[in-house]
Formats: sequence, C-alpha cells, structure tokens
Amino acid sequence: VSPITLTTDFGVGSHYVAAMKGVILSLHPAAAIVDVTHAVPAQDVRHGAVILEDVAPLFPADSIHVAVVDPGVGTDRAIVYARIGRQNFVAPDNGLLSRLARRTPPSKMLRLDRPEYWRHPVSSTFHGRDIMAPVAARLSLGAPPEAMGTPVGRLVDLAWPEVQLSPRGIVGSVILVDSFGNLITDITAEMLSNYPCNERTRIACGSLETPGIRRTYGDLAPGALAALVGSSGRLELALVGGNAAVRFGIKAGTPVAVRWD
Amino acid sequence: VSPITLTTDFGVGSHYVAAMKGVILSLHPAAAIVDVTHAVPAQDVRHGAVILEDVAPLFPADSIHVAVVDPGVGTDRAIVYARIGRQNFVAPDNGLLSRLARRTPPSKMLRLDRPEYWRHPVSSTFHGRDIMAPVAARLSLGAPPEAMGTPVGRLVDLAWPEVQLSPRGIVGSVILVDSFGNLITDITAEMLSNYPCNERTRIACGSLETPGIRRTYGDLAPGALAALVGSSGRLELALVGGNAAVRFGIKAGTPVAVRWD
Amino acid sequence: VSPITLTTDFGVGSHYVAAMKGVILSLHPAAAIVDVTHAVPAQDVRHGAVILEDVAPLFPADSIHVAVVDPGVGTDRAIVYARIGRQNFVAPDNGLLSRLARRTPPSKMLRLDRPEYWRHPVSSTFHGRDIMAPVAARLSLGAPPEAMGTPVGRLVDLAWPEVQLSPRGIVGSVILVDSFGNLITDITAEMLSNYPCNERTRIACGSLETPGIRRTYGDLAPGALAALVGSSGRLELALVGGNAAVRFGIKAGTPVAVRWD
Repeated sequence: VSPITLTTDFGVGSHYVAAMKGVILSLHPAAAIVDVTHAVPAQDVRHGAVILEDVAPLFPADSIHVAVVDPGVGTDRAIVYARIGRQNFVAPDNGLLSRLARRTPPSKMLRLDRPEYWRHPVSSTFHGRDIMAPVAARLSLGAPPEAMGTPVGRLVDLAWPEVQLSPRGIVGSVILVDSFGNLITDITAEMLSNYPCNERTRIACGSLETPGIRRTYGDLAPGALAALVGSSGRLELALVGGNAAVRFGIKAGTPVAVRWD
Repeated sequence: VSPITLTTDFGVGSHYVAAMKGVILSLHPAAAIVDVTHAVPAQDVRHGAVILEDVAPLFPADSIHVAVVDPGVGTDRAIVYARIGRQNFVAPDNGLLSRLARRTPPSKMLRLDRPEYWRHPVSSTFHGRDIMAPVAARLSLGAPPEAMGTPVGRLVDLAWPEVQLSPRGIVGSVILVDSFGNLITDITAEMLSNYPCNERTRIACGSLETPGIRRTYGDLAPGALAALVGSSGRLELALVGGNAAVRFGIKAGTPVAVRWD
Repeated sequence: VSPITLTTDFGVGSHYVAAMKGVILSLHPAAAIVDVTHAVPAQDVRHGAVILEDVAPLFPADSIHVAVVDPGVGTDRAIVYARIGRQNFVAPDNGLLSRLARRTPPSKMLRLDRPEYWRHPVSSTFHGRDIMAPVAARLSLGAPPEAMGTPVGRLVDLAWPEVQLSPRGIVGSVILVDSFGNLITDITAEMLSNYPCNERTRIACGSLETPGIRRTYGDLAPGALAALVGSSGRLELALVGGNAAVRFGIKAGTPVAVRWD
C-alpha cells in the first residue's frame, strides 16, 4: 500500500496526531502511516513548505503526503489535493505546497469540497482529523481524487525570495533552521558550480562570517563554523557540535551572501 | 490486525517506548503499533485519562490501547484489562480509564494476574515492558483476555469535578492543556446548547476573561483570545498564535465560568 | 518481515529521520520501521551505545538496527555491518556497537564499501540517508550482507570504565541519564548479588547519597531518593517524581560508589 505521511505543526508528542491516525486506520486498517515531522514551528507555513520539498520526493511513487500547518482553519481557505511529480498531496491551500509546485508544476489540482468523504461532524478547528485524514485514507484505498473534489487552476503561491546571482557573488536567504540549528539556504550546489570555490570565497549571514566551502564537517574541531553543501543539495551553515541558529541569533529569512572579492 | 496503541508518560524520544515495541514485536512480528503520545506529564494520571477518552474512540473497533502512566509501579496496584465500548484497554488500575468508564461502563474487567503471559524476569519498575506489552501482543494475536486475568467488579475511579449548571451560567474546569497551550474544559457543546450564545456571554478562567463563543480562531488576529467549542466537542480557550496556558499561568484543574449576566 | 529500527541523535521531530524512512520505503515498500529514539544527545556515541545494548536484544531475531550517531560523517571512518547475537546492526564504526560487542562478540563484521548498494549522489553529511538506509532496506529484503561489504577483523572499541569490586564495596559509573533523569549505572544485579543488602549499604554519586537498595520506587513519597535495580538489570538512582540528574547536576561518567561500612 502507498504510505501516508504526516507533516504538522501540532508539536512533538501531540495527541492530535494520534487522532488523525485513528481516523485513517478506522477507514483503512492496513494503512502505512509515517511521520515526517510534527515539529514545524506553529503556523510556520514556509517551514512546512521547505520540509515537504526536501522530504516528499524521497518517498515511494504514489505516496500520500498530508500536511497540516493551517493558521486559517475554519475560514474559507480551501483544502486541496495536488499531484506533483509522482506524489500525492493533501493540504490547506495556503502555500504549503508552493515550493514543490514551483519546482514541478502540479499535474492535477482539486479543491476538496465533497463532504460525503469527510468525518462528521466536522470540527471548525481540526480539519486535519475531519477532512484531510479521511480523504487520505480513501486515496490510499484507491479512491480517485477526482471523486472527492473540483478541479482548480492554481494553488496559492508565496513570495519566496529569488536568489541574486552576479559576477561577484550570490545573495540568497536562510530558508530553514534544521533540528541541529544548521542554517539551510536557498543557494544550491548548481548555482555554486558556476563560481570558483577558492581561498577568496567568503560566506556571510547576520553576524556570522566564514571563509571557504567545505566538503564535510566531520573533520572539523567542535566549535568551528563551516559552510558546506548539505544533504539537500543546498549551501548550509553549521557550527560543529553546536547550534548555529542559537549562537548567532539567525532565523529563516535572513539573507546569506557568498562573495569572491 | 487490530492496532496496538501506546500512551505513556515516558517522555518524547524515550527509549523505554522502544523497549515495549521490541517486546510486542518479538511476540507478534506483524503487530501494528501506533503511538498516541508519550508526552503525558510525568505521573499525571488525569492527563492520560483525558487523552484516552478523546483519542481511543477514533481508532478501529477492537484496537488494543496500552496506557502506562503508573506512579504505583511495583506496589500492589492492579494491572487491568477492560473492554469499553468496542475498544480494549490494558492499564494500571489507577484511574487512567476512569473517564472512559464513566462515559461507557466497561463490559468486561479483569485483573491481569497470570504471570505465565508475562515477560520474565518481571522488573519491579517497568511493568509496561514486562506485563502490559506481552499481554497486548497476545491480545492482538487473538488470545482471549479471560485467559490472562481474573474478573473484577469495578475499576479505580477518580474524583472528577462535576460541571455546575445553573440558570445564570456554567462552572466547569480545565481538564487538559494541549500541545498548543489551549485550555480544554469539561464543558461540552451539549451543555452549552441549553444556553443562549450572545453578546452577554462571558467566559472567565483564572486571570483570563473573554466575551462570546466563537466558531473558529482561523479568522482572528494573532494575540486574540478566543473561547470556542474545540475538536473534542468541549469548550476550549485559546490564544491565537500563542500559548494560553503559559500566558495566563493556567493549569489543569482551574475552574472555568461561563456567565450570562 | 524483519523490522528495521532507527536510533539517532537527529533530535525528536527531525525531518531527517523521515528522509531515511522515505529512502527505506522506496526500496522496500513493506518495510516495518520502528523508532528506538532520536533523542540521543548530539554526537554522544556512548549514550547511543548504551541504548542499543539495552533495547536491541528485546527485538525479534534478525531485526536490523540502524544507528546514526556519527560525528565523523564524511571522514574516512568506516560504516559497518555487524551480526551480534541474533541481531543485525548497521552503524558508523565509532564505538556505537562497542557495548553490544563486548557482551557478545560479533559473528560477522563487514565494512560497507560497495557503492552500488547506496543512494547517489552520496551526501558527505548524511550517510544515514544515503548509505545506511539503503543497505538496511536491502538487508530487510533478504540481500546477504556479504554482498555489500568486506570482512573486517574488529570494530572500534571505546574505553568503558571497569567496575571495581572490593570486599568493602563497588565503584562503578553512571552510563546513562534516562528520559526521567534517572541515573543508570554499570553496576549490575549480578555484581550486587555477591554483597549483602542491608541497613549499612550506602550509595553515593556526586553530591547525592542514599542508604539501602530498594525493590521499587512506587511506594516512596515524591521527592524521596532511591537506589534500586532498574529495568535493565542495573543499579539506578532515581528521585521519586523528579529528575535526579538535574537536581544533583550529575552526568554520564560520574562515579558511583556502593559501600558497606
């Protein structure tokens, strides 16, 4: 069976996650449910969008990814199904899927508006349990998404900053602070490949500055600061054995400059 | 197979949870194990009881819910099996099942006292691993609960406060602080349905006071305080984009008054 | 199918864990994946080694335990497969398996050096996802470990302190602080069985001192300090209803003395 993954801002250990799992298993007892994370900072749609972009493509084709970072729950924001690449997504239409959709335009987009597929009564504060979980369970049982919604022409996008490339350097942003406090940027290995990586390379972010781009941090002393291309193929800044985000007070959105001067 | 759920106060990320899973899988390799939560505050039986009341009924019929919030481990408190509604429970007999049992009287109650179904040697500090996990595994394999225990006539109850209903208002209590810091009360939508919900409604709890009962918080500004009927069908108090429990210093047990004056 | 367990220092709620699960499921959609813990303190190989020693033997024979506490990621430290007892392990060769291997010498040890079994491109910072996860998935599909590596004669060991036994007492160490803040030592029930346990027994650790060894803490008042043989068969020190590690400022490595004087 295609796995159902869950990505939420409910908090690690929240019983609301278990409520969703109970609803899914009640409809599909053999469902395979995998937690992506429940530690998305509360209502931080951008954080969720980056996690989904990095993690969802690692799952088997036809997985069903349910994402609940939903500050607008109970308002008239839509809940959508989208087919992006070979993966299925169920999420509020608030930009959670915007990074995935920028990378690969969705081949199918539906507004989930057929209450006969939901759990009733529908709580006005927990559409994850009452709408998204039952829809995901039914998708995993093979129900066609078309039966559960109405086609829409586009999804809500978010204003993601563009990386600025110039002859003398690159200016991007931190897009994610990970569980180690590493600062993940939107500057990709591909972008960097057009520049020399030499002793004149300087990376700056907030009050943090470090020379050179390293291959790994495994050979650095604790406390060293390193810029390197991380596991998601993006430039990241790490404090070896420490938490760069806390140490330098840097949050998602902070600009990052790579210069060769 | 019927899922086995786990609810404990071991702490998120505790390897003791994995110890229980290892024991279950050793007896039943195809068992489907679902975490409800391991973030019950240490030894907070009441918190666990509310979580079980809210989450267990969402699971498929015949699920096996194992709950380990067990300040009396190693003393002569019993470990019990109970059939409540269409669900099975295995827990210390300390009130953990008391909210479920008040709602639906158990149709079967057994003291689990047959050591031949346990893991040996039985640790005096970890009956979750050595008694409850093997019993749950055997239940999931189809063993009849009667084989593993002796019928008992009642379970330990806890003194849950009664909600006071009067012509001028309702006085209840906070029964759970959830993972968002929302204050979940014992005042139900059904109780509220007998009162008008109008501009004269006032909700007070500790130093917190707010007018009216809203349908959702999705349309409120961050920082707004809202009373609404939450996803468990109970009145709850939430600070939009914040943590009401921390902000107002309110814990489970604090009285909540709804007045129309 | 044999379960695959995951033990990491990625942090509770880290999406890097989900990345590993996605890779495993992509290769083996029916894999059964169980989290042991992701709360190993960052880069604390010793903590991980104790957890593995305590938890892995509880799992079914032929389980595949993947452990990623890997401060040397990207350097030339090996990644190894080991067969220890009836269990399989995949881990960096940095001492993570050293407690298990001291207890039961591995019957098979391989350096995992066949890139054709890995995920490509291999990130220099995330061998858990790119090397260990695919190897574990293939083991769970029945691939022979010999196909994926080259035999080695030994694993990296760590200098674990020896427990000192003398006529007047025992001197050992705290080897783990658990999720309750209990102090787990390397003094076993078997060692203690050679000594009397009477009113003259004194246990001391840092600024903590307590008389006698108890059977359980379930019958002690909150705030009481207790020494007892815990669920892993080792002497442990617990503060009833509290956190002994925080209260007494004690960390793993602190000596523990049991005296009869």
